[in-house]
Amino acid sequence: MTVRQRAAWWWHRQVVAPAATLLFGIVLLAGCAGLPATDPLPSWNEGATKAAIVRLVTETTRTGGPDYVPPAERIATFDNDGTLWTEHPMYVEVLFTAARIRELAASNPAWRTEQPFKAVIDNDREAMAKLSESDFFKLIAATHAGQTSAQFQKAAADWLAEAKNPRFNKLHTELTYQPMLEVLAYLRANGYKTFIVSGGTVEFIRSFAEKAYGIPPEQVIGTSFDAKYAFAGDVAAVTAEPKLMLLDDGPGKAIGIDHFIGRVPIAAFGNSDGDIAMLQTTTNSPTSKQRPRFAAFVWHTDAVREYAYDRDTTVGRLNQGLDVAPKLGWYLIDMKKDWKVIFPYELKP
Amino acid sequence: MTVRQRAAWWWHRQVVAPAATLLFGIVLLAGCAGLPATDPLPSWNEGATKAAIVRLVTETTRTGGPDYVPPAERIATFDNDGTLWTEHPMYVEVLFTAARIRELAASNPAWRTEQPFKAVIDNDREAMAKLSESDFFKLIAATHAGQTSAQFQKAAADWLAEAKNPRFNKLHTELTYQPMLEVLAYLRANGYKTFIVSGGTVEFIRSFAEKAYGIPPEQVIGTSFDAKYAFAGDVAAVTAEPKLMLLDDGPGKAIGIDHFIGRVPIAAFGNSDGDIAMLQTTTNSPTSKQRPRFAAFVWHTDAVREYAYDRDTTVGRLNQGLDVAPKLGWYLIDMKKDWKVIFPYELKP
Repeated sequence: MTVRQRAAWWWHRQVVAPAATLLFGIVLLAGCAGLPATDPLPSWNEGATKAAIVRLVTETTRTGGPDYVPPAERIATFDNDGTLWTEHPMYVEVLFTAARIRELAASNPAWRTEQPFKAVIDNDREAMAKLSESDFFKLIAATHAGQTSAQFQKAAADWLAEAKNPRFNKLHTELTYQPMLEVLAYLRANGYKTFIVSGGTVEFIRSFAEKAYGIPPEQVIGTSFDAKYAFAGDVAAVTAEPKLMLLDDGPGKAIGIDHFIGRVPIAAFGNSDGDIAMLQTTTNSPTSKQRPRFAAFVWHTDAVREYAYDRDTTVGRLNQGLDVAPKLGWYLIDMKKDWKVIFPYELKP
Repeated sequence: MTVRQRAAWWWHRQVVAPAATLLFGIVLLAGCAGLPATDPLPSWNEGATKAAIVRLVTETTRTGGPDYVPPAERIATFDNDGTLWTEHPMYVEVLFTAARIRELAASNPAWRTEQPFKAVIDNDREAMAKLSESDFFKLIAATHAGQTSAQFQKAAADWLAEAKNPRFNKLHTELTYQPMLEVLAYLRANGYKTFIVSGGTVEFIRSFAEKAYGIPPEQVIGTSFDAKYAFAGDVAAVTAEPKLMLLDDGPGKAIGIDHFIGRVPIAAFGNSDGDIAMLQTTTNSPTSKQRPRFAAFVWHTDAVREYAYDRDTTVGRLNQGLDVAPKLGWYLIDMKKDWKVIFPYELKP
C-alpha cells in the first residue's frame, strides 16, 4: 500500500463507509416514515415552493394528523392561460377567435363592414389593438352564438390540432407546463379533485382539457353564455346565445367557484391579477382557517425558456397580485428558479 | 315403507334432488357469470324497470362488451323534488321560503305592505294561491339576496332540522325514497358520478344533499342567482343578487347539464314535465346513440303509502311527460307496483 492508497483506504473506512451507512439508514427511516420513495415533482428544483406543495399534500392526507382533510373537501383550482399553458404572445382563445371569425365571415357578410368584426377579418393590426374588452367579448360571443357545445368544441379541436405558437413552432397543447402537469397528477394521486377556473370560455377549455390535463368537462369552469334549448325532429340541442351568463375572470372566478363547486378550495394556482379573487377565496374565506390552504402565482420570470412578464404586459398582467401575495402568504412560483424544465417535450425520452 | 313413504321417496329421488342439483348448478353458473350475489336494489320489486336498471349498470361496466362505457362518461342525473324525496303537499323549498320570509320580515318592514311578501307574512292563503311564478321567484330571490352561500345554507339546514311534513310528521330529509337511494348507491358503486339537476336553488339542495344522498356540492346543479364578490377586512365573500342566473327547470335543465356537466348523461331520472328536457337531452342528443341510455319518470301512483298525482296537480305535474315517455322509450317507475317500501324508516332495523 502506498501512502496514497493507505490515505484512500482510511478515507473510505472512516468517512465514506459510515456516511454511506448513515445515508442508507436515513433513506430507510424516510421510507418507514412513509415519505415518497420517488419524487412526486421531478421537474421542480428543491426550494420553499416545492417543499410547501409536498408538505400540503402530505399533511392533508395524513390520517389522524391535525391538518387532515377528508377526501370530499380536497379541491384544487387552476387558472389555465399562463398557469397551465403558455399565454404569450397572445391568449390562445383570442388567436382561435380571430381565425374562427374569418372562417365564419363567409356566412356573415355584414361583418365585412361592421366593427369589431371588420378589424379581425381585414387583419388590421392597428384597429385590433384599439378593440375594447366589450368588443372582444362580442367577437368571442359570435364564435359561440347559435352553436351547440359539440359544434363549438369540434371547431376548436380542429384548430388546435394545427395552429402553432409562432415562437416555439409547437402546437399550443404541446406548450403546457410540465411542472404543473406534475402538480395536477400529484394532487389527484392523493385524492384531490382538480378544477380549471378560467377566463376563457368553458367550451374552449373543454375542447382540450381532458386530453391535455386529465380534467373532465364537469371540472371545467369558464366564461359561459346564456343558451336556449330546442327539441326538433326528435333531437335535443342547447345552442349558445350572444349574451354572457358568467364572465369567469377576476371577481367572476370567486362567483364561479361558489356556484359550480360550492366549497372553498384547499389549493389554488393562478398567474395574473385576474386570479386574485380566486386566491383570496381560497385563503381568506370565513372558513379558510379550518383547513390548511395553499395559494400561488406562476411568475413568468424566464425570458430564455418561455417569457418574462408581470407588471407591464396587457396579456396576463401580474401587478396588484405581486403586492398582495406576500401580505396574504401566497407563494410565487419563479419559473426560472423553480422549474427544471418548462414544457413536456424538453424531457429526455 | 308404506306406499305413502315410498311415493315420497320416489318424489324426492326423481324430482326434488335433481331439481335441487339443477338449481345449485344455475346459482353456481350465475355466480361464475359475474351476476351480483346480493340484490343491489332490494327495495325494488322484480319487473321491467328494475331489470332495465340492472341491465344498464351490468352492460355499461362489462369491460370489452359492446355497451361498455368508460368511467369518465358514467354520468347520471336526478331531479330532486318528487324524484328523490316527497314534494307533496308542497315543494319543500317553498315551505322554507315562506318560513324564511316571515323570519326576515323583522328586518324588512317594507314587506308588510308589499306583495308578494305581504301574502306570505300574513299567511293569507287566498292571496298566496294567486301568486304568479314571477312572484314566487321574487320570494325565493329575497331569501338569497345579500346572503353568502354559507349563510343561506345554515338557515336552510337549521330549518330542515326541525320542520316536518304535515302528513307524515317526519323531517323532510326522512322522506327520501329508499329505492332511489339504492339506485344512487348502486350507480356510484359502479363508477357513476351522480348529479342532482333541480329546479330548487343550488344552495337549498346543497344544504342537505351530501348528508341525505351522498352527493357533494360540486355535483348539485340548481337554480342560481347572479352574485357579487367583495374583499373587505381581509375576508373574501360572494353574496347573491336578486337576479336569476339560471332557472334550472324545464329547458333550463338541459342548459344546466350543458354548462355544468358538459356531457350527455347515461341515465336520467325525473318525475314531472319540468324534467322532460333533461330526459330528452339524455336519450335524444346527437351523440345519445353512441352509448346505452336510460331515462325514467318516478310516477306517483301510491295514495296510500305516499301520494297519487300526475296530470292534475300543480305541484310536480306529469302530463306531457306521460305522453312523451312511451314514444321515446322512457320508463315509468310505478311507485305502487315497483317499490316494496317508500321511505328508509319503513325498513326493518
